[in-house]
Amino acid sequence: MAEPNIISYDALLSRIETIFERAGVRRESAEAVARVIAAGERDHCKSHGIYRIEGCLRVIAAGKVEPLAVPEIHDTGKSIIEVDARGGFSNPAFYAARDALVERARANGLAALVIRDCLHFSALWHDVEALAEDGLASLSMCPSYSFVAPAGGKEPLLGTNPIAFGWPRPGEHPYVFDFATSVAARGEIELHRRAGTPIPEGWAVDRDGNPTTDPEAALDGAMLTFGGHKGSAISTMVELLSGAMLGEFMSKEALDFMGGTALLPRHGALVLALDPQTFAARSGRDPITEGEKLLTAIGAQGARLPSQRRFEARRKAMQDGITLSDAEMAQLDRFESLGLAAVAG
Amino acid sequence: MAEPNIISYDALLSRIETIFERAGVRRESAEAVARVIAAGERDHCKSHGIYRIEGCLRVIAAGKVEPLAVPEIHDTGKSIIEVDARGGFSNPAFYAARDALVERARANGLAALVIRDCLHFSALWHDVEALAEDGLASLSMCPSYSFVAPAGGKEPLLGTNPIAFGWPRPGEHPYVFDFATSVAARGEIELHRRAGTPIPEGWAVDRDGNPTTDPEAALDGAMLTFGGHKGSAISTMVELLSGAMLGEFMSKEALDFMGGTALLPRHGALVLALDPQTFAARSGRDPITEGEKLLTAIGAQGARLPSQRRFEARRKAMQDGITLSDAEMAQLDRFESLGLAAVAG
Repeated sequence: MAEPNIISYDALLSRIETIFERAGVRRESAEAVARVIAAGERDHCKSHGIYRIEGCLRVIAAGKVEPLAVPEIHDTGKSIIEVDARGGFSNPAFYAARDALVERARANGLAALVIRDCLHFSALWHDVEALAEDGLASLSMCPSYSFVAPAGGKEPLLGTNPIAFGWPRPGEHPYVFDFATSVAARGEIELHRRAGTPIPEGWAVDRDGNPTTDPEAALDGAMLTFGGHKGSAISTMVELLSGAMLGEFMSKEALDFMGGTALLPRHGALVLALDPQTFAARSGRDPITEGEKLLTAIGAQGARLPSQRRFEARRKAMQDGITLSDAEMAQLDRFESLGLAAVAG
Repeated sequence: MAEPNIISYDALLSRIETIFERAGVRRESAEAVARVIAAGERDHCKSHGIYRIEGCLRVIAAGKVEPLAVPEIHDTGKSIIEVDARGGFSNPAFYAARDALVERARANGLAALVIRDCLHFSALWHDVEALAEDGLASLSMCPSYSFVAPAGGKEPLLGTNPIAFGWPRPGEHPYVFDFATSVAARGEIELHRRAGTPIPEGWAVDRDGNPTTDPEAALDGAMLTFGGHKGSAISTMVELLSGAMLGEFMSKEALDFMGGTALLPRHGALVLALDPQTFAARSGRDPITEGEKLLTAIGAQGARLPSQRRFEARRKAMQDGITLSDAEMAQLDRFESLGLAAVAG
């Protein structure tokens, strides 16, 4: 490649929106989906950037997501806001319910958002960052596909079950973490398989439950959670709170429903939003100022905060634009001109 | 010892109550504290059993806990119930507010309990088990003393920051996990120091931030979190949600306040309670039945659920009584007859 392909965030966002609209996705949903994909690329979070477009188009082509679904909000007036994605993407459902969630968290001190029956492909940091902009702390989680064995077990039962947390900060970026409760992403094992390299110890067990560094045996067996039995317990909590508790799919049922892992999963999601100002009120202290004491002290001893690398990539992308490979540019062109036909066959 | 000393749970509970009443603790508080200590011993959770009596008496003798404090409930009518322990033990504050928390979680779908200014020594599983009895899922957390370095750092800043989760089950015992977010307990390192044995790799760093297996160097340096940067992120969340957000001490300030680690810490605590029936209502599914699909499948592949060993110890203790050593029996006698004088000097 002679010249690098540099595209601005806004131009990329616009191209992705066009791709989804041409694929038959309703305008507001195309905008919401494009926003999280463009943000992933902007933050150099490649696994949740434009790489995801093809997966989304495939699930539309397969008829396993409702491209025209209009999210339906159910507000009981309690501390739970429910939004039924009606088989559509999770992102438009989140954005449709965000204002109600924020209003309820501020009014009651804390509130929950339940997203029902959504096609879920995006990182959870979008949600918790958005809520931090509104001054709220939040915790977001969802099941996925059952690839992961519980500690001491050998059969896949848990999902990679991501969990994300956001906390407002006075400066440009909130405190945000977002990670899979599996020790690694499934895609990383797949990359080792293709490259013919062993995976690190502790990532997976084979069909018989024995530790393995062979990526084939790992994909045929089960992945492991981070942090041994503690991570396994947290992953189980994610299944219970964002699956069973909502009456939505847990990871095993999500996999059974989709009939395989070729397509993105459909399930629910849970977001808890807490208003630090309401919680701290009686103390007379400002919770955000208090939080800064910890967060700046972590930085002062040279430790990185989670998401710091992502925020640095974002700053650079917003200033200098986003660099894409020739293959990535060609793929955007193809999706834009061919629509769903690009993933047919 | 010729014959083992066997004591029934009820008799042990009664003896511990007497010890605390004679030490000047108000009756309701003595009952609450005795209940969690007796339960720890019953569950063979020795680090939170009768071993804790001495620490509690020392903090009373030092005048750093208010033995006569009456917990004060502040109910704003929102989704947050606050209870000010007023410098007393955390346990009577929790029990004083429990009914209000349960009522509010059922009415609103979820609710939070904020405990302010309490002396905290007990395991968190008491709280989440109690709420599971009422059909609620719950998440409980609190800071402690700053012994733990953040991932990539070297100075102690985070507490051992326990986190506990409870989920109701139809049978005898709920699903419960309760663990420190540090990789090990500080007491375990102390035991290695006394025994002159090295600690496992990954538990701690020395003053310069280098990995160490020397218990002396570890106690002089910093402990590490479980699960690398993921565990460190969760521990940071515990500081923010149960310290900064409440306007209560984080682990560093708790240590500064008490002026050393010889006495138990004073800080706040946060309990989130969620009503699965309210969350699941619109789905038409029973969330507890759904949860059982996962929990029984974990057991079916031979994996242990967290707390399973504790529940087995409990069954045995309630059937056969609790076995104490001669030294433990002698200590109970001494505390009962001497009161605070037993820890003077």
